[in-house]
Amino acid sequence: MKKTIVLGAVVLCLCFSLPVDVKAQRPWIQPIESPVVHPDRTVTFNFKAPNAKKVELSSQFIKEPQLLKRDTSGIWSITLGPVEPNLYPYNFIVDSVAVADPNNVNIFPNERFKSSLVDIPGQRPAIYAAQDVLHGEVTHCYYKSKSMNALRPLVIYTPPGYRQNNKKYPVFYLVSGATDTEETWFKVGRVNFILDNLIAQNKAVPMIVVMPYGNTLTGTPDPSSLKAADMYKVFNDDLIGSIIPYVEANYRVIPDREKRAVAGFSRGGGQSLFAGFTNLDKFAWICSYSAFLTPEVFEKYFSDVYANPEVTNEQLRLLWLGVGYEDFLYKQAVTFVDLLKEKKIEQKNLITTGGHTWMNARLYLTETLQLFFK
Amino acid sequence: MKKTIVLGAVVLCLCFSLPVDVKAQRPWIQPIESPVVHPDRTVTFNFKAPNAKKVELSSQFIKEPQLLKRDTSGIWSITLGPVEPNLYPYNFIVDSVAVADPNNVNIFPNERFKSSLVDIPGQRPAIYAAQDVLHGEVTHCYYKSKSMNALRPLVIYTPPGYRQNNKKYPVFYLVSGATDTEETWFKVGRVNFILDNLIAQNKAVPMIVVMPYGNTLTGTPDPSSLKAADMYKVFNDDLIGSIIPYVEANYRVIPDREKRAVAGFSRGGGQSLFAGFTNLDKFAWICSYSAFLTPEVFEKYFSDVYANPEVTNEQLRLLWLGVGYEDFLYKQAVTFVDLLKEKKIEQKNLITTGGHTWMNARLYLTETLQLFFK
Repeated sequence: MKKTIVLGAVVLCLCFSLPVDVKAQRPWIQPIESPVVHPDRTVTFNFKAPNAKKVELSSQFIKEPQLLKRDTSGIWSITLGPVEPNLYPYNFIVDSVAVADPNNVNIFPNERFKSSLVDIPGQRPAIYAAQDVLHGEVTHCYYKSKSMNALRPLVIYTPPGYRQNNKKYPVFYLVSGATDTEETWFKVGRVNFILDNLIAQNKAVPMIVVMPYGNTLTGTPDPSSLKAADMYKVFNDDLIGSIIPYVEANYRVIPDREKRAVAGFSRGGGQSLFAGFTNLDKFAWICSYSAFLTPEVFEKYFSDVYANPEVTNEQLRLLWLGVGYEDFLYKQAVTFVDLLKEKKIEQKNLITTGGHTWMNARLYLTETLQLFFK
Repeated sequence: MKKTIVLGAVVLCLCFSLPVDVKAQRPWIQPIESPVVHPDRTVTFNFKAPNAKKVELSSQFIKEPQLLKRDTSGIWSITLGPVEPNLYPYNFIVDSVAVADPNNVNIFPNERFKSSLVDIPGQRPAIYAAQDVLHGEVTHCYYKSKSMNALRPLVIYTPPGYRQNNKKYPVFYLVSGATDTEETWFKVGRVNFILDNLIAQNKAVPMIVVMPYGNTLTGTPDPSSLKAADMYKVFNDDLIGSIIPYVEANYRVIPDREKRAVAGFSRGGGQSLFAGFTNLDKFAWICSYSAFLTPEVFEKYFSDVYANPEVTNEQLRLLWLGVGYEDFLYKQAVTFVDLLKEKKIEQKNLITTGGHTWMNARLYLTETLQLFFK
């Protein structure tokens, strides 16, 4: 997890942005190793906080925060597990303040909280792990949003060989959840390594993946309200009016609805369903990972979709919805599934264990990547 | 600084990796805005820590950490400045523990500490700011290091127009400091926006910038020792044997020593001087930002460089060393400058105010980018 530190060289740059008490320890600052994943899949977390009264560890592989023990040097530690193999977000709670692990370079990109990532490997390499296969690239680029009148970021995966050949590729638009950034599907979702591996195993078609910044900065609607759908419309206008034209002008893509997919997690799931359903001329593959839309939204915005279900079903190569039993959105997701059934819209569903987590988001991603463009 | 939050949608994904007490507040978590930069260049920092006894702010625009004041809701605040326009790292010190700002999406990528970035704009747009010009791209890719027998990351800037044309470009290899990652020159150095702006102003030649991960995982030598140079050699073997071949096989570059530059900050400065001096057949442009090498290193590794200074001076299109008066490496840097003079090696020097900071690193970068390949 942690990159091994070259201690001697630390002296060269530790004097910036560190608090004074740490500076005073120059030149031989001892790094603390954390997390330490053991061969038996137990994992030790270490955190230095000499003056803290209470340090806990919070993660989704445990049901509730666990108390760390302090040693005489002020380092708090806990060993947990064995832990089911996966890549988990976690943080320390230091006297009620949630903080990332300072000794772990793998940070969860987010607007609002600071978490770190711990990888518990299994006996076989995980599908999200960097394996000995050809690797694609992940690019940060910037486009002008006409509808939002702003320069906005995109993160784009291109498959192995993209720079060497002249092929054109299908494109998958993949939206992250609320408070996530355009980097979250890359850094937490590991979409690049998952696709590298699936392509190497001939399980996925080589494709470009476009990851927008889903926050459209338009207020604070209740997600179950029509206002949330109005907010999704702002994203949709940006996607259709600016993002797709930018991608198609700058990347070698097949500009055809049969070669365009859209999906997202959580808020991004709502945004991708909205974008798909209101643009069936542009998307033939639509997925939702742990999202929901209310019947009211369906009635207001998607009348074309259910007015003639036979036409819709012919247009849709895939409508796929996944959710976990323990997801707090589970009931809404099932309501939406039932609504689609009532409207006679064909769909595929995956109901899994687990909750509203990035472990499930990665699972749904891995499942659907193997269906697209076939 | 902070991306505005769409509150209503927060409910959709806040249930993961947050501590229980925050979860309990669902669905309407109030985000805290921090930092807030005011028009008069004062800046307010806010941090929620109801149980903390003491919260301080640490940054290089202040001489020592400043105490925040707590309000009745447990939010600690301080307004500082006016602050000289620049992009600064900062963090909170909560009961002696240094933490990043949870409400600021702009994180300082580092192995060892967690800081955030605050941008204090001046009257004119900063050279590191995203301006209304054509933008290049920043790509994460992965290469196999033969000498280190590992898959390693590279971050690569390509200039505006790279995907549209068929031109070949000069390449600048840019190494970050100790404990930094391959992302630090991108996220903190802002090399992409600096080059976008300099290219738009016709002040820099369009070029590719390759940013390796400078940590070569080989132990803990004292940086003033010969062992540090031995460590630099490990990086050098990777750069020459694997990084340059990867870049030249995958990007459109001009494979000529006159079209290759190398530079770095802090430990990366030592690594780039080492790589440049031991490979004058490969690099004609060599810079060091706030680094040093000892006379012992010079004697052991660079005998070819000073054995015939006339040849060296003809080969070197640029040898450039920058350091700040307040840098803790200032004396060593001056010793090295004197050593080069004694050896009759021509050089350019820039001595500035300030210390061993990323504000200075960006300044030196901006200066030297305007000299390369002309």
